[in-house]
Amino acid sequence: MKDIQSERDSRRINIQKVGVKTVTYPITVLDKARKQQHTVATVNMYVNLPHRFKGTHMSRFLEILNDFHGEIDINSFPVILRKMKDRLEAEASHLEIEFPYFLDKNGGGRGRSTGHYRCQLHGSLNLEEDLLLTVEVPISIPVVENPPRRLPGSYGRWGHAAVSVRLRHFFWIEDLILSIEEEVESEIAQLLARQRPVISVESLARRVGRCLEGLSAISWFSVTVHNFGDECATFATVSCP
Amino acid sequence: MKDIQSERDSRRINIQKVGVKTVTYPITVLDKARKQQHTVATVNMYVNLPHRFKGTHMSRFLEILNDFHGEIDINSFPVILRKMKDRLEAEASHLEIEFPYFLDKNGGGRGRSTGHYRCQLHGSLNLEEDLLLTVEVPISIPVVENPPRRLPGSYGRWGHAAVSVRLRHFFWIEDLILSIEEEVESEIAQLLARQRPVISVESLARRVGRCLEGLSAISWFSVTVHNFGDECATFATVSCP
Amino acid sequence: MKDIQSERDSRRINIQKVGVKTVTYPITVLDKARKQQHTVATVNMYVNLPHRFKGTHMSRFLEILNDFHGEIDINSFPVILRKMKDRLEAEASHLEIEFPYFLDKNGGGRGRSTGHYRCQLHGSLNLEEDLLLTVEVPISIPVVENPPRRLPGSYGRWGHAAVSVRLRHFFWIEDLILSIEEEVESEIAQLLARQRPVISVESLARRVGRCLEGLSAISWFSVTVHNFGDECATFATVSCP
Amino acid sequence: MKDIQSERDSRRINIQKVGVKTVTYPITVLDKARKQQHTVATVNMYVNLPHRFKGTHMSRFLEILNDFHGEIDINSFPVILRKMKDRLEAEASHLEIEFPYFLDKNGGGRGRSTGHYRCQLHGSLNLEEDLLLTVEVPISIPVVENPPRRLPGSYGRWGHAAVSVRLRHFFWIEDLILSIEEEVESEIAQLLARQRPVISVESLARRVGRCLEGLSAISWFSVTVHNFGDECATFATVSCP
Repeated sequence: MKDIQSERDSRRINIQKVGVKTVTYPITVLDKARKQQHTVATVNMYVNLPHRFKGTHMSRFLEILNDFHGEIDINSFPVILRKMKDRLEAEASHLEIEFPYFLDKNGGGRGRSTGHYRCQLHGSLNLEEDLLLTVEVPISIPVVENPPRRLPGSYGRWGHAAVSVRLRHFFWIEDLILSIEEEVESEIAQLLARQRPVISVESLARRVGRCLEGLSAISWFSVTVHNFGDECATFATVSCP
Repeated sequence: MKDIQSERDSRRINIQKVGVKTVTYPITVLDKARKQQHTVATVNMYVNLPHRFKGTHMSRFLEILNDFHGEIDINSFPVILRKMKDRLEAEASHLEIEFPYFLDKNGGGRGRSTGHYRCQLHGSLNLEEDLLLTVEVPISIPVVENPPRRLPGSYGRWGHAAVSVRLRHFFWIEDLILSIEEEVESEIAQLLARQRPVISVESLARRVGRCLEGLSAISWFSVTVHNFGDECATFATVSCP
Repeated sequence: MKDIQSERDSRRINIQKVGVKTVTYPITVLDKARKQQHTVATVNMYVNLPHRFKGTHMSRFLEILNDFHGEIDINSFPVILRKMKDRLEAEASHLEIEFPYFLDKNGGGRGRSTGHYRCQLHGSLNLEEDLLLTVEVPISIPVVENPPRRLPGSYGRWGHAAVSVRLRHFFWIEDLILSIEEEVESEIAQLLARQRPVISVESLARRVGRCLEGLSAISWFSVTVHNFGDECATFATVSCP
Repeated sequence: MKDIQSERDSRRINIQKVGVKTVTYPITVLDKARKQQHTVATVNMYVNLPHRFKGTHMSRFLEILNDFHGEIDINSFPVILRKMKDRLEAEASHLEIEFPYFLDKNGGGRGRSTGHYRCQLHGSLNLEEDLLLTVEVPISIPVVENPPRRLPGSYGRWGHAAVSVRLRHFFWIEDLILSIEEEVESEIAQLLARQRPVISVESLARRVGRCLEGLSAISWFSVTVHNFGDECATFATVSCP
């Protein structure tokens, strides 16, 4: 039987991307405190095909995923991308995962608590390799008083900062999250100390941006700060100059 | 050809409910200010079959929906439920719709604005008729100062109150929404005026509950107040004593 | 300082339910093949308070969750519920978790593959203890031919069966899933073999129901079969006679 | 009082984008059969600011939306974009809306039915104006027989085609939808007529692509076909050569 999938295609319109999407898969990622943590990812895998190919073997994507037994982290990304590119005879390969990342925190008087942060890793391998890490950090606002303090109970969700970075060398996800949180809290405290406090998505985005500029591990960044309002969300984006 | 759908079924296990779900459908609902407003609903329609029936004609649900050209509101609910019960020869009929309800507001210095509220109408007709109206009202918290005021810019989403009521007689959705908003704002102002302000889901739920108790149009209610926190939402529910 | 949360409340309207909702939390559940599997759950925990209480200590819910380090399964449910009831001095306690459950399968010619199934465990402890297990099993339809066979490539999502059960004694989630899948496939094959094949949500729901009736471990069940259509989903529900 | 929002900002990091997101808003769009149809959109509006600006006036976005009373369609897009660019003194303006578009159909024996299609309009105005229209068309597969026919009842959701186009001149959304549906049905019929039918996302994407190439109103297109599988979705993308 002829292999229809890899037969040359005479049709003019070429497939740009082909692959699998929204695979729910248990993974382990690197964790600074506990070495590894178990979580569940939504995975997309796709390739760009050379023009002579008509289609691809979808099952190979899941085979490659199974080969790694879900050990998918910043270190294994390049290896998986290379395997995809080779086994699918592709011009370029792409791997995108999204997962909740759990972080234990010592809440002031609130005892130990576990927060989670939505994270994404988007990698691609063409002639060069590219890896983008995105973390989403919730923002809440303390009560304005002298000194500012938080109300007992939650202040609700003011918004979040979605930060994407390209790295020069390895950097812990938790260190990135904690840097962003620190910067946001410090900016809010300064803004609230003013006579006429205005907390804006613009000022927070710029503040986080300046912080990332100062981190030598980061070669590129983009910061979008969202504020959830009653009728709509407002947002501002800054990125690497 | 024999009509398989209405043929008696000798099998012991009876169908409890059968129908259509998550139909996206444009509807018009009653609007106090503008007589009617256009919105889009998600519709569920289902029936309880008498034991002798094996199945039903799914297409009839959508035919009935089309017959009403999307004019689905508190007044037409009983008519549609009756038609469903009759045409599907059912023991009981159920109609559930969920839709955004738009409300124009005169924002203080912010000019005219359009807010929207998620609403649900759940009706059923068995021996008696029952209609449950649910509205979801967002809650935000002003800054604590002397006097309390809101920060310029949004304070984010503290949470929402989901209120379900059964009515003795017609009552405008906007009047229900405005009553709830007024009650919530007033409770928050009182709580913030205290030496040690604590805004809790319990106190807000109870306050809205007491307000609903005082409205003669309402024969039954349930109030759930949610507070969106960093790690989780907290909630409290009160209902008709 | 007076403890406001546990102070008697003179107000007439009582809190019915109070707790935390949609906590994202890493858990381990029992797994027949591998003893344990790691997954991520969405957790709700709440209690019914005795009338004399005004509110509760929300932080205690998360403390209890942390105490179990995410080892939440059919066996630990009663223990957690008891701890909630005791520590929060409640009349009744409720624990609800929802999580993807992963199941390795030997696909015919397709090699090893990992499927996932949405599962829920809803437990409550009042005077008696109650535990409800729900699994959602996808349904797809093979091509009608003589003999019936599947098209190469996926046939898309015909629908799913959502099955809730109460158990007399321990039963593996995977055994429940596999029983349902077997029953569904066998019913579809029979229906397709007819001269005029009609695959209906009613017949599938009834078939799965009859199968569950025959399993001695199951003391109660409810089956809802959904079919995703172009314009809407249709569904039918059967439950324990 | 000094106007903080428009004051020159000495900070190096510039705001790239600023605006409002996910505004739920009732709109009317052009409809070939009925002139206009009412639907509900999710709206994003944002601008690129010149470097000298520090922030913008968020309320102006909603004011502009209100000015048009929700009459937002292919014809009014350029006018709204111009107004945004002028009133916010921006370098570029962006307007994105997503809405269900309803289409009445004469189902063969199934009577009149109302289908809905998820649509998006993404417009931007920089030095030039750009408008992208995206429609999502569901795909289902008939039973393979001789001749091919559909099963009574729905065949579930095989997948969908998401088609984005740029237009040379006005083109009705319904004509675009119907062209895609016709093409998909015809390709599936041809594939099923083969000895070894293989329905692949690649062949469907290419077929729709060839059709769009032949429509003179379309200056650019991108087609992504998704197939919903049991474990994951597969997809293929083609675009304008």
